[in-house]
Amino acid sequence: MKVFDIPGFPNPLRVRIALAEKGLASKVEFITIDLPAAEHKQPAFLAINPLGTVPVLQLDDGTNISECTAITEYLDNQDGNPVLTGKTPKEKAIIHMMQRRAESELENPIGFYFHHATPGLGAGLQPYKSPEWEGRVEWGNRQREKAVAGMRYFDDVLRSQPYVAGDAFSMADITVYAGLVFAGFAAIAIPEECTALVAWQAKVQERPSVKNPA
Amino acid sequence: MKVFDIPGFPNPLRVRIALAEKGLASKVEFITIDLPAAEHKQPAFLAINPLGTVPVLQLDDGTNISECTAITEYLDNQDGNPVLTGKTPKEKAIIHMMQRRAESELENPIGFYFHHATPGLGAGLQPYKSPEWEGRVEWGNRQREKAVAGMRYFDDVLRSQPYVAGDAFSMADITVYAGLVFAGFAAIAIPEECTALVAWQAKVQERPSVKNPA
Repeated sequence: MKVFDIPGFPNPLRVRIALAEKGLASKVEFITIDLPAAEHKQPAFLAINPLGTVPVLQLDDGTNISECTAITEYLDNQDGNPVLTGKTPKEKAIIHMMQRRAESELENPIGFYFHHATPGLGAGLQPYKSPEWEGRVEWGNRQREKAVAGMRYFDDVLRSQPYVAGDAFSMADITVYAGLVFAGFAAIAIPEECTALVAWQAKVQERPSVKNPA
Repeated sequence: MKVFDIPGFPNPLRVRIALAEKGLASKVEFITIDLPAAEHKQPAFLAINPLGTVPVLQLDDGTNISECTAITEYLDNQDGNPVLTGKTPKEKAIIHMMQRRAESELENPIGFYFHHATPGLGAGLQPYKSPEWEGRVEWGNRQREKAVAGMRYFDDVLRSQPYVAGDAFSMADITVYAGLVFAGFAAIAIPEECTALVAWQAKVQERPSVKNPA
């Protein structure tokens, strides 16, 4: 298998943690996308992923899988022993629910803020992320507020359970963790009173897969 | 099981089609949310789903599942014979990838357009969806363009395969179908040249689960 990604970026990190959790890191060849050249927005890469996003998992038969949830489903089901996406229908449902909330309440609004209200990835990449328009900074700043509200939501969740989707570490934890990495990138601080979220973050940082992702 | 929803709305429709596909309609009691009263944004409902969105599936043990993907995972795995979310790791991955694209390229931008650049659900609900801000119409109109690009993307996909995720009808088809229902609601027409998308829509409309959702 091949993974096309940009090391250190939040979404690629989600897949690299999943690979480490599943012990699959050695089965993957990583191909680094040339970010300053906007390689992921050029025709050769758009043939691999028409949406121009990373990471992409390319299977040995040439099938290209984008979207972290989809890639994680694939990796987690490789050995018939899913540990990140749930075993029972109820576990699967709760994990998918919380993972989706991590995207809609953290990752997406942080992305909007970063790309619309800050210099983002720089002038060369800005046209792909936020072509000039009048209200973009206001939009971005509103989304920053949403992201902070999202942090408060997950803090509340983690006051009554050890992990984002319940008693066990799952795909949903990976997404929230990567969301906080992205928040750091965008200089959005976790509110001081979110002590449960900060304690959970410290605990997750101690996992071997997070200390040493693929 | 109970489903809290608003009949006729695009996301509730996704779950109602899934219930019909799985033959589970008779096992569910539907509870209609009072939309004009913004019942889904009031404390009683926020205790069920803190994000204030419908639909929500409430299991008999009281567990509340929101997010259509999560609800569909639950329903589809009830009988150990998933037909909407894939059986093999590769099927699961492709279905989740295409379902996510249906949200990011169709449903989300249509929602942004509808709630920011049109009267949306009316003045009573607007504050929950788009508090007054200067750039909201411009943002909405940009997202309308993105939704139309999304239609062209799915048209392209459907030129080379019968369903959104390949040879079989899946959760991804349900999401694209509901996205087009939402587009109709928001008066975003499918471009005339998207003949494969229109032909697929007509074919899906003939399915018993779509003709008679739960």
